[in-house]
Amino acid sequence: MEITIEKRIGIPSLLTKVKTAEEAAALIHDGDIVGMSGFTRAGDAKVVPLALAERAKNENIKIDVYTGASLGPEVDQRLAEVGAIRKRVPYQGDPVIRNLINKGEILYVDAHLSHNAELVRQGIIGPIDFAIIEATAITEDGLIIPTTSVGNSPIYAKYAKNIIVELNVAHSDTLVGVHDIFIPEEQGDRQPIQLLKAKDRIGEIGIRVEPEKIQAIVVSDQTDAPSLIVAPDDETQTMANHLLDFLRGEIKAGRLTNKLAPIQSGVGSVANAVLEGFKESEFEDLEVFSEVLQDAVFNLIDAGKVSFASCTSITISEELQKKVYGNIEKYADKIVLRPQEISNHPEVIRRLGLIAINAALEVDIYGNVNSTHVSGTRMMNGIGGSGDFTRNSRISIFVTKSYAKGGTISSIVPMVPHHDHTEHDVHVIVTEQGVADLRGLAPKERVPLIIENCVHPDYKQQLWDYYNEAVELTGGHHTPHNLEKALSWHVNLAKNGTMKAE
Amino acid sequence: MEITIEKRIGIPSLLTKVKTAEEAAALIHDGDIVGMSGFTRAGDAKVVPLALAERAKNENIKIDVYTGASLGPEVDQRLAEVGAIRKRVPYQGDPVIRNLINKGEILYVDAHLSHNAELVRQGIIGPIDFAIIEATAITEDGLIIPTTSVGNSPIYAKYAKNIIVELNVAHSDTLVGVHDIFIPEEQGDRQPIQLLKAKDRIGEIGIRVEPEKIQAIVVSDQTDAPSLIVAPDDETQTMANHLLDFLRGEIKAGRLTNKLAPIQSGVGSVANAVLEGFKESEFEDLEVFSEVLQDAVFNLIDAGKVSFASCTSITISEELQKKVYGNIEKYADKIVLRPQEISNHPEVIRRLGLIAINAALEVDIYGNVNSTHVSGTRMMNGIGGSGDFTRNSRISIFVTKSYAKGGTISSIVPMVPHHDHTEHDVHVIVTEQGVADLRGLAPKERVPLIIENCVHPDYKQQLWDYYNEAVELTGGHHTPHNLEKALSWHVNLAKNGTMKAE
Repeated sequence: MEITIEKRIGIPSLLTKVKTAEEAAALIHDGDIVGMSGFTRAGDAKVVPLALAERAKNENIKIDVYTGASLGPEVDQRLAEVGAIRKRVPYQGDPVIRNLINKGEILYVDAHLSHNAELVRQGIIGPIDFAIIEATAITEDGLIIPTTSVGNSPIYAKYAKNIIVELNVAHSDTLVGVHDIFIPEEQGDRQPIQLLKAKDRIGEIGIRVEPEKIQAIVVSDQTDAPSLIVAPDDETQTMANHLLDFLRGEIKAGRLTNKLAPIQSGVGSVANAVLEGFKESEFEDLEVFSEVLQDAVFNLIDAGKVSFASCTSITISEELQKKVYGNIEKYADKIVLRPQEISNHPEVIRRLGLIAINAALEVDIYGNVNSTHVSGTRMMNGIGGSGDFTRNSRISIFVTKSYAKGGTISSIVPMVPHHDHTEHDVHVIVTEQGVADLRGLAPKERVPLIIENCVHPDYKQQLWDYYNEAVELTGGHHTPHNLEKALSWHVNLAKNGTMKAE
Repeated sequence: MEITIEKRIGIPSLLTKVKTAEEAAALIHDGDIVGMSGFTRAGDAKVVPLALAERAKNENIKIDVYTGASLGPEVDQRLAEVGAIRKRVPYQGDPVIRNLINKGEILYVDAHLSHNAELVRQGIIGPIDFAIIEATAITEDGLIIPTTSVGNSPIYAKYAKNIIVELNVAHSDTLVGVHDIFIPEEQGDRQPIQLLKAKDRIGEIGIRVEPEKIQAIVVSDQTDAPSLIVAPDDETQTMANHLLDFLRGEIKAGRLTNKLAPIQSGVGSVANAVLEGFKESEFEDLEVFSEVLQDAVFNLIDAGKVSFASCTSITISEELQKKVYGNIEKYADKIVLRPQEISNHPEVIRRLGLIAINAALEVDIYGNVNSTHVSGTRMMNGIGGSGDFTRNSRISIFVTKSYAKGGTISSIVPMVPHHDHTEHDVHVIVTEQGVADLRGLAPKERVPLIIENCVHPDYKQQLWDYYNEAVELTGGHHTPHNLEKALSWHVNLAKNGTMKAE
């Protein structure tokens, strides 16, 4: 269905604001702080940032880029390549910008995704000069209808001095109505967030803005860059089976029913593959309350397993994009997109009692998790929402293969060299080897479960050797460590290319 | 005012349950799980656990002890000494039990204090055989009125198979009405917690129990062990001044008013001394929404600075005990005691937008905080509620003197050897040297603020040397570290008695 620009811009006076990407990009000044839509490749501002990157080739321009989460493969890359980014907040996932962050050329603030809105509200980050928001329409009563993500767009639009809308005509207008935009009051005057079930709607269908703040409307027709999900393999299938068995145990223990509890699943191939595992399970009438809906969720909706899914972003493969956006009316009453402040809000997560499933980079023998830093120093992507969900969930589960790089790296180490989730927050660890349920256990009770159930056989004895020596050295302290060797596995990896002891 | 036992036990049939401490202790079996009242010395079960410890001298009896937080100086000590504790949950602060935890003889689960109730509710910890609750009365409609703390008593009483009440007659009946007992529904059916202001009351004045679960009522008249607060000194006064100046800056920036925001202040002498500093400040009509009310809060109420204080426990010095409990009617409408699930609830903390002030054991150059483990291995007390407050507060502030043990220890180190609060959660660090405001900053932006503003002069250059070498080694990675030296300060301390480089 083709819809004219006029039909998509409900306020006639705004038609005079229609500009080219170059004209819109010209409004932005060196030193500006720009809040962009976009969350894990979905619904990101596409054409104006690229026009700005072009401009920055011949002009000294450096901006701070705030987003929901990661953008598509082009924007961060192009802006970073031309040196146009001073500071990046609160998540990224692009190799080019990642390299520049790890060369010290771009400042990066890696923050809990639910915290971002509070920082803007308080003026800790900002003031925001421009919000650039991808939209599918502007309604006659002044609502900007987002596309495939909501992210931080509502809070950026609210606090920005100026707004640029990227009107994306690639989406049909059936996206109208799938969003639920609610912004909490200021702290001190704040009311409870009246979201009691995953499917509850508490806000408006779009982002309410003052139309006079809209400085430009740029028409685009680029679809989101598809996700790069890697297909499930034998090991992710095994991990999924372990997870399903663990959940069956919870039902047997009387803690869950066959409907489980609303599920959050982190971003990436492993989390997606594990979630795919639910398709062949006996669980049913499942609800998803997550940050990002990946392919697996739509496959589970199709399979009749998932009855409702709440998110802040839809990040799917090319095949799924065709299927979902070509039949959005089929899914429209089964999904809702919310601001990331709400999808990740501790109040809501704790109330609903989520089962949170996130991927770990590495885990240590006491259950601390590193989600972000390769060898403790090199930023990978960021913590994203994993902390929001992990801390407040009913059951926080971390999944990781027990090894990486052909076995030269063990994903379970004596001490993680960077801590994103501490022992206080990590409930369950799942690898292809098995499951360690750490809930209610003291550190010394966790060690045998983690080593015996989760570690790759190549590293079991080596971890036991570390632990036993640490116990002896400390005389059995609460959390035995040998500080001279706690990080030696990573040192060994850097020097000899392997964590394996000689 | 003396009140007869009959007046304190509103249900006549329960008078037959009045027993001696020894008789009550005899009800408990080897292997039982016992949930006790008590939170930082306040309102703890006193006589029955001691009778149990006596019994355990001649009998093989080992129980799991769950509490609100730490108990008075005797109970943990005596039970631990006779080997009667298998597992201790979720906080302790006694030297004797601490030693046995660090010898591997007692298992200890160090948990976020707001998480405890969920673990009981789910049956992850438990089932609870006995709840032993100190009370000032049992009302005719079956409410147990707690004394000077609420802690986890409501959830333990609800889920315990049996209840023993320690009826403490040392308190007058004017404690009736200062508690507000609310237990959230099960996750999945849970409603919003309707607590919108620090002073809101949302529950009942006591713990509603089935009277038939009460197996014994033991009369006692022991008051709480007074707190051991150390008086403010020049350095804590300087820290208080730094903190007040920081808050003045927040007002100037338009982020706070003269009334600030509800204040949470951690347990211990440093946090208390810093809070005392508000007495001479220009701030007024302050609210406290905290875990424990220490001396400073009552002094601030007397000084007309604090208008209302919410807590789960009142832990005060002997002098203050006389003043407060001798004139409880003076304070009764200015305080409320809640279950720790509510005083520490992320939903409420995030909604109210607290200013959280907690003490750190040590901090690293990126803002990670160790609150619990001396040199990364030896448990001190526990994380307590610091994580509940820190993660969800408007401003999370950590206070610590910049050095310890006569300067042989720097409280700011290259990398903390145990992580309780990560870089994602720590906003502001205050030492006697100054303030580092880390909000919205990248790791490399935090380093100079922490080193220049907070570190003792003796260690500044040594930290710069570490950092500069790490930057060079990694080529400027996001979080530069030299993993071979990251924990070397603690290794040096263990070997040479000092963190100072030669």
